[in-house]
Amino acid sequence: MNKKIRGSAIAKIVGNNALRHDNIDETVTMYVYEEIIDGKKLTEIINEQHENVKYLPGIKLPPNVVAVPDVVEAAKDADILVFVVPHQFIKTLCSTLLGKIKPTATGLSLIKGFDVAEGGGIDLISHIITKHLRIEVSVLMGANLANEVALEKFCETTIGCKNKRIAPVLRDIIQTDYFRVVVVDDVDAVEVCGALKNIVACGAGFVDGLGLGDNTKAAVIRLGLMEMIKFVDVFYPGSKLSTFFESCGVADLITTCYGGRNRRVSEAFVKTGKTIEELEKEMLNGQKLQGPITAAEVNHMLKNKSMEESFLNFYSCFLYFTAVHRICTREIEPKEMIECIREHPEHMKVRNGFVPGRCSL
Amino acid sequence: MNKKIRGSAIAKIVGNNALRHDNIDETVTMYVYEEIIDGKKLTEIINEQHENVKYLPGIKLPPNVVAVPDVVEAAKDADILVFVVPHQFIKTLCSTLLGKIKPTATGLSLIKGFDVAEGGGIDLISHIITKHLRIEVSVLMGANLANEVALEKFCETTIGCKNKRIAPVLRDIIQTDYFRVVVVDDVDAVEVCGALKNIVACGAGFVDGLGLGDNTKAAVIRLGLMEMIKFVDVFYPGSKLSTFFESCGVADLITTCYGGRNRRVSEAFVKTGKTIEELEKEMLNGQKLQGPITAAEVNHMLKNKSMEESFLNFYSCFLYFTAVHRICTREIEPKEMIECIREHPEHMKVRNGFVPGRCSL
Repeated sequence: MNKKIRGSAIAKIVGNNALRHDNIDETVTMYVYEEIIDGKKLTEIINEQHENVKYLPGIKLPPNVVAVPDVVEAAKDADILVFVVPHQFIKTLCSTLLGKIKPTATGLSLIKGFDVAEGGGIDLISHIITKHLRIEVSVLMGANLANEVALEKFCETTIGCKNKRIAPVLRDIIQTDYFRVVVVDDVDAVEVCGALKNIVACGAGFVDGLGLGDNTKAAVIRLGLMEMIKFVDVFYPGSKLSTFFESCGVADLITTCYGGRNRRVSEAFVKTGKTIEELEKEMLNGQKLQGPITAAEVNHMLKNKSMEESFLNFYSCFLYFTAVHRICTREIEPKEMIECIREHPEHMKVRNGFVPGRCSL
Repeated sequence: MNKKIRGSAIAKIVGNNALRHDNIDETVTMYVYEEIIDGKKLTEIINEQHENVKYLPGIKLPPNVVAVPDVVEAAKDADILVFVVPHQFIKTLCSTLLGKIKPTATGLSLIKGFDVAEGGGIDLISHIITKHLRIEVSVLMGANLANEVALEKFCETTIGCKNKRIAPVLRDIIQTDYFRVVVVDDVDAVEVCGALKNIVACGAGFVDGLGLGDNTKAAVIRLGLMEMIKFVDVFYPGSKLSTFFESCGVADLITTCYGGRNRRVSEAFVKTGKTIEELEKEMLNGQKLQGPITAAEVNHMLKNKSMEESFLNFYSCFLYFTAVHRICTREIEPKEMIECIREHPEHMKVRNGFVPGRCSL
């Protein structure tokens, strides 16, 4: 999903809520990377026409949303900073903002994806922001295709926020009658869902490309979901199973596995035999597909921990994530997908104490 | 799904497993309602050609599956009785079998749907079998479209079984390399999922018919799922949240909401303005659609308990199930669907102790 669409769609919501709620400042500043459109600055167009004519044409922004081309200027007086940038820019953005924002500010990140940590692990984007800017960061994830949000189609979203004082404020700035919010305190799990679902969607796309039918697709999505749960259980202990029932969990996963670009490109990957890079050029205008990147990051970490496949420890391996990564890199053929997960640890369980291996969540 | 296809598909699996496992008797008797096909008895055709030419043509049954036209004859020596009949026939079937089966036999029900209990409640089919035949009954549910199972497409299923001695046996007779089993001890929840998902699928079909988009469909499916969970939590206390992550839960729900007949007919219901009865004639060859029936049964019970809508007790009401029922009966228009669930109890929660109303699962 294009981050610039998302930025405008969320600015529209926050702007309208700022007008509605007495406890929120009326003016909402929105950092916009300056571009010249027909000889005129994009920020000026937005501030005069109240419309992001390039990235969200046809959708009116409320007049209290002010586009600002300087990110420090946009952020300096804010009590709440909403982050919607491609995740590769987040560290630079944080360096730019460091020391220039209110020390009491709180963050809300809509950024999906991981960052590679030193030592072969994974960093969550919200953790990076917290570390670099020294502010508390909540996250917002869910089945929220931005163009549909902008058109005010009914949907739900999940906010992960640990701070009981901030939670109702974040809800006030986000919730509308068409954009329904559930707040949970399980911040890491919410954010991890937003990244891992793209790996699962690649597998769903392979199944579509292979023409394997509805049962197989459902099984594959479910096994992917079980690995998402196991991943959170292992690497973010203390998370709650119920979080996966929120919009950030099953709902976003469903949308991504039936409608999203990761599914679509993965289907084409099987049908055309082209590489992911070729398909990114053809189908995504050169934009990177998130699923294969996340699969590679996750695989790197799992390999370091010997949790890639079942050779060493059957119950703690991630066969699905590993299969998707190997298919994306053409280490194995897409048609091997099902063989990789046929004997999945999930199927070795008789749950609830009969045999070992159940998730502790 | 046609029960006769399901019966043959499962007979094929059980037959093959009987040949494979030493602890299972080789002969598998299959009760088949006798019909004459081109002047010949269907049971004879099956036993000679090893193919159910009427209901599952092109799929070979193993030779040790023996079709028997008399249900008592088919069941009398069985240690495990697998039930695959339309649920309206179950009581008659039980009366016929009473006293004629092994008292030590155990049952496995594949029957989806509820029965209306005296006093306005709901009876689970497995409970009816247990009550009438005085045998223990396990259940099997999942994302298992029978024609795909017969074609040996990879899929998963869930067996709900409380008996730790029986669980591995049921798994042995059902699991193959393409039909993967997870056994849980949460029998009632597994069975309830198989019935309630059809209500949710009707709502998903209405959303498709209204053209509301991916976000809305995901939100609607999720809210339906949350009502499934709440229903189990309220009426079958002691059930486990993890069961909803099994094939009987999210996986079957996804398949039903994207591919199933309840979704398809409900979409047509919105687009054509015809009644459910008219569409059953046109689209299902006169067969009854399960979702509207289950919605009516559930609604009857909820009404008796004042849990239909939010007027009396906001947090314990079932707005989604109620909306689907009212739309099916044309009490309200399909386009009112979203208004009915816009202010859903789920959206009033800030989870994990912030405000009341969370599910105790």
